[in-house]
Amino acid sequence: MKDNFQDWTRANQSRIEASLDNLLPAANISPKRLHNAMRFSVIGGGKRIRPLLAFAAGEISEAKEERVTIVAVAVELIHAYSLVHDDLPCMDDDVLRRGKPACHIEYNEATALLVGDSLQSLAFQLLSESCLADTPRIQLNMINNLAQAAGSCGMAGGQAFDLDSVGKELNLQELEFMHVHKTGALIRSAIMMGACCGKNMSALQLKNLDNFAKYIGLAFQVVDDVLDTEATTATLGKTAGKDADNNKPTYVSILGVKKARELAEKLRQNAYQELETFGKAATRLRQLTDYIIQRES
Amino acid sequence: MKDNFQDWTRANQSRIEASLDNLLPAANISPKRLHNAMRFSVIGGGKRIRPLLAFAAGEISEAKEERVTIVAVAVELIHAYSLVHDDLPCMDDDVLRRGKPACHIEYNEATALLVGDSLQSLAFQLLSESCLADTPRIQLNMINNLAQAAGSCGMAGGQAFDLDSVGKELNLQELEFMHVHKTGALIRSAIMMGACCGKNMSALQLKNLDNFAKYIGLAFQVVDDVLDTEATTATLGKTAGKDADNNKPTYVSILGVKKARELAEKLRQNAYQELETFGKAATRLRQLTDYIIQRES
Repeated sequence: MKDNFQDWTRANQSRIEASLDNLLPAANISPKRLHNAMRFSVIGGGKRIRPLLAFAAGEISEAKEERVTIVAVAVELIHAYSLVHDDLPCMDDDVLRRGKPACHIEYNEATALLVGDSLQSLAFQLLSESCLADTPRIQLNMINNLAQAAGSCGMAGGQAFDLDSVGKELNLQELEFMHVHKTGALIRSAIMMGACCGKNMSALQLKNLDNFAKYIGLAFQVVDDVLDTEATTATLGKTAGKDADNNKPTYVSILGVKKARELAEKLRQNAYQELETFGKAATRLRQLTDYIIQRES
Repeated sequence: MKDNFQDWTRANQSRIEASLDNLLPAANISPKRLHNAMRFSVIGGGKRIRPLLAFAAGEISEAKEERVTIVAVAVELIHAYSLVHDDLPCMDDDVLRRGKPACHIEYNEATALLVGDSLQSLAFQLLSESCLADTPRIQLNMINNLAQAAGSCGMAGGQAFDLDSVGKELNLQELEFMHVHKTGALIRSAIMMGACCGKNMSALQLKNLDNFAKYIGLAFQVVDDVLDTEATTATLGKTAGKDADNNKPTYVSILGVKKARELAEKLRQNAYQELETFGKAATRLRQLTDYIIQRES
């Protein structure tokens, strides 16, 4: 690797930022208020972890950058839509997102609702528009993967499970079930779609990659829970301590900080094991794994 | 045609009902509350006009019934999601839908939000799952068509324009712009996708069909506005007179009932003209055109 991880990360974050700017409808296209609000909610914020995972997974299959970019944008649009809807008063009722007012605060609730709805449509529009895989059949499978990851048996289902769990005692297994859906499904989809942009992979390789994706998705959430306890609102760019205040079960509330950190470390080791078969091609995925575990916001 | 229009309509409505029941996640799959609410919002109601249009358009290209059924289900899921979100307090704030409580009344707002989000994902999941066209490339185009029809330059954009127009004076052109997006886009998509399930059509035929779809989409809305003025809440299964109460511009508020009816009749004639090239294969589309203009609910 001729450039280091930080350079790679920054380059891909810039690429994603530019592509989001380019692929979202322009602010002067009617309905302007909606398009402005879509851009406000997506551009200029976030660590873009899911896009980075897609790019790193694409390196395993030597996928073309321009293909992975579309996949990364589509996944980020789904992620952004989920944040806009999650912040609404009937959901998490949060006013701050990525250090800026939440969409429904900057605009209004109805606009935020339509922003989320439109971002979801746009993700599928982009995935069906240009050539993203060696055959259109693979591309259909990728769309199917994202649709399942986003839907009632994926991310939205995890949200519903989360809502139903407020004020309840969850055990570790139930908490894991929730997060495998709520955050894990979309992270898995980012990784699998990124890899599917390139050369065909064996069933075993796909299985390894999917296992890796499961571990990294859970690790991401465990670290999120630790940060929600330990970091400040300023560092996070969203309201800290929110889950504890809402009496929501978290890895920290069930395990405590120390054991939660140990679990994250265990998940890192498991994730690394699944990557062994890929050798050097998985260097970026390993670096991202470390970054996800060690990040401070 | 060996069976009459009423029999054909009932048979296809039953087919759609059974397919929705079959393709929506079962109520005993976790998260159960969400899946129950999805089924509550979709099954057992509505005239299924968009599915009927897809089936009728499929007859033009001799499309296989099982393909058109999936397209019809996908379009109906998008339509159902839009109704669930439109009824929310931050949008139209309506409590009654298809003669039943609105989803957020029967469940709660957060669930209704996730129901809409999940129904949209499910539509794209179904469209990418099985073989719906003679080539996967055509199928990708169909997905693209629906995504555009649903998004910010289609249905959701029409909603945004509608929100922005409350209390404003719109002229006929602006009202048409709104409806071409709000209801027209999805109706066009139903018709174009239904036809794309079958034999290849010429560019001219596709243009004729798309023009037909534009006319019928507008006619549908003009008649809707007349019914909103003249019909009762009991007949409609949704709150009548709502648009006038909300000071929303409608074809009736701009043209009056008589001229609105004349416009609907003019649109029917235009729609019929676009179908001439298809001869007998367009019989069902003509019958549906008459039904849409003459319906009383």
